[in-house]
Amino acid sequence: MNTEQIVLKSRPRGLPTEENFSYENIQLPELQPGEVLLEAICFSVDPYMRGRMNDAKSYVPPFQIGQPVEGGVIAKVIESKSDQLLTGDVVTARLPWRQQTLASAKILQKVDTTVAPASYYLGILGMPGLTAYFGLLDIGKPKAGETVVVSGAAGAVGIVVGQIAKIKGCRVIGIAGSDNKIKSLKEEFGFDEGINYKTTKILRKDIARLCPNGVDVYFDNVGGEISDAVIANMNFHSRISLCGQIALYNSTEIPMGPRLQPILLTRSVLMQGFIVSNYQGRFSEGINQLAQWVKDGSLKYTETKVKGFKQLPKALISLFNGANTGKMIVEV
Amino acid sequence: MNTEQIVLKSRPRGLPTEENFSYENIQLPELQPGEVLLEAICFSVDPYMRGRMNDAKSYVPPFQIGQPVEGGVIAKVIESKSDQLLTGDVVTARLPWRQQTLASAKILQKVDTTVAPASYYLGILGMPGLTAYFGLLDIGKPKAGETVVVSGAAGAVGIVVGQIAKIKGCRVIGIAGSDNKIKSLKEEFGFDEGINYKTTKILRKDIARLCPNGVDVYFDNVGGEISDAVIANMNFHSRISLCGQIALYNSTEIPMGPRLQPILLTRSVLMQGFIVSNYQGRFSEGINQLAQWVKDGSLKYTETKVKGFKQLPKALISLFNGANTGKMIVEV
Repeated sequence: MNTEQIVLKSRPRGLPTEENFSYENIQLPELQPGEVLLEAICFSVDPYMRGRMNDAKSYVPPFQIGQPVEGGVIAKVIESKSDQLLTGDVVTARLPWRQQTLASAKILQKVDTTVAPASYYLGILGMPGLTAYFGLLDIGKPKAGETVVVSGAAGAVGIVVGQIAKIKGCRVIGIAGSDNKIKSLKEEFGFDEGINYKTTKILRKDIARLCPNGVDVYFDNVGGEISDAVIANMNFHSRISLCGQIALYNSTEIPMGPRLQPILLTRSVLMQGFIVSNYQGRFSEGINQLAQWVKDGSLKYTETKVKGFKQLPKALISLFNGANTGKMIVEV
Repeated sequence: MNTEQIVLKSRPRGLPTEENFSYENIQLPELQPGEVLLEAICFSVDPYMRGRMNDAKSYVPPFQIGQPVEGGVIAKVIESKSDQLLTGDVVTARLPWRQQTLASAKILQKVDTTVAPASYYLGILGMPGLTAYFGLLDIGKPKAGETVVVSGAAGAVGIVVGQIAKIKGCRVIGIAGSDNKIKSLKEEFGFDEGINYKTTKILRKDIARLCPNGVDVYFDNVGGEISDAVIANMNFHSRISLCGQIALYNSTEIPMGPRLQPILLTRSVLMQGFIVSNYQGRFSEGINQLAQWVKDGSLKYTETKVKGFKQLPKALISLFNGANTGKMIVEV
């Protein structure tokens, strides 16, 4: 059987371009016992994938030149040689960027589309939702009445972080890159305030104004100068949950900035980096709680959907221009 | 009664000089009920005091121009109008830099000179010892077999940190600023290895060589480029206890450096700033354990002693040139 795949053609320097990807037609091997044939329904594009395009040691191994890019996928079983999955079942896993692919049933997780639409399992009930859940609650430990600032607030993770902080009784300020995003954070997702970092004059002062009691928890998706401005406003005994550094992912040199240790030291601040897989053993706790909040309406969700398998590279690149509100999904 | 005091004459820019201090002869008021008259035995000079010379909000209020400098002092009661203290008692508190002074008995802590020499209560059984104890054990959480790196290793705090890490079964590498200090860390205090940061060519590589399994705990007394080099070698799930930033205390501009968040993020590193007073409620636990280790010989201690009240400013300034091994004490 023939199918199309998208491979990494070359490693980008700085912002990736479509030139870094190529399209190939390949022949899939025979289906083996224990395996299923899958047809992709939708693909996840996520900022962390930029790191895998470099040839550098990180928490996930780099993509290989000439090999298909891989990421979170929702797919339907169209043929099964496994007794664990039936034709028609919907599953998720980290899989290659292919229209059809073979996979061992063992690596696939069945998703329940009666609880939420399938694509939610790439977002609020998948890695981004779990990242928000554990990064905020386990590291940030927000208490009712505290002030929480989220950068990349309109992204797949940020939008969930802000809402969980509201559920916990906090004042929530989101930082994002357009007036429309800010409007939606406040009107649709219940953030108390929002700051458009592209139009603010002195971000540090805007944060000080909107956080009259200082910042108790900073959930950082972006890094760089936005984070410098937030960190200048951190309270004594405050917490920084380091989740992403999208502002730096395309840097070609070691990024420089003001040293943070004097602030962290004099104010007894905790800064903790994490990746969601640190919490693997508690994923079902997280998914159950998130699904509960989605069902009872206390957690709203939004996706930016792009149509067409061939649009995957463009959709990934667009994340770095802030094209998305909420989770970016590519539907086949 | 007349006595001499040392006041802050002007605020330093950069490294303090003796010009920033002046000497005054003052008349002490009448001793009041509840008070005692004290004669200083020895004074503590500590790196954190540099911060109090600036007119900036920090965890301790700034020294005031024209007012006496204050710091840790051991003194003997020479007259008492309190029923809690007798003439001849030895006490400690944060007190003005004066040969004699009056103080309310309530703020004074009696010290037991049968357990250890009086000056130890400014060092290993005082703030520096407690800083090492809580910063290492509560934040660094070293486990047997792990690798611990200490900067400012020959200072009052560092020398205790390294020894506690050895008691806990760790491999310990100290960074200090002279070959003599390194020799003493290894031969007298049981450090496994030492690095002279003034003569090393590429500190980052030396650390990598001496820490073949990476760095699990970094106890940071100095900040700046030394810390950059250590942090480049941190392991997944490692911990940084931020105790001091002596390399930056005399900066006149905001110090810049490579952004650390990408490393902290991809390796799930914890960085926690602290001040010893966060642990006020557990001081007696710390002092008892430290005294126990001193008594059984597992914790060795060293002081650099300077003689003469008038030497106080010079002794404080010399800390920033690395003049001390272990705790710097000025004896009257």
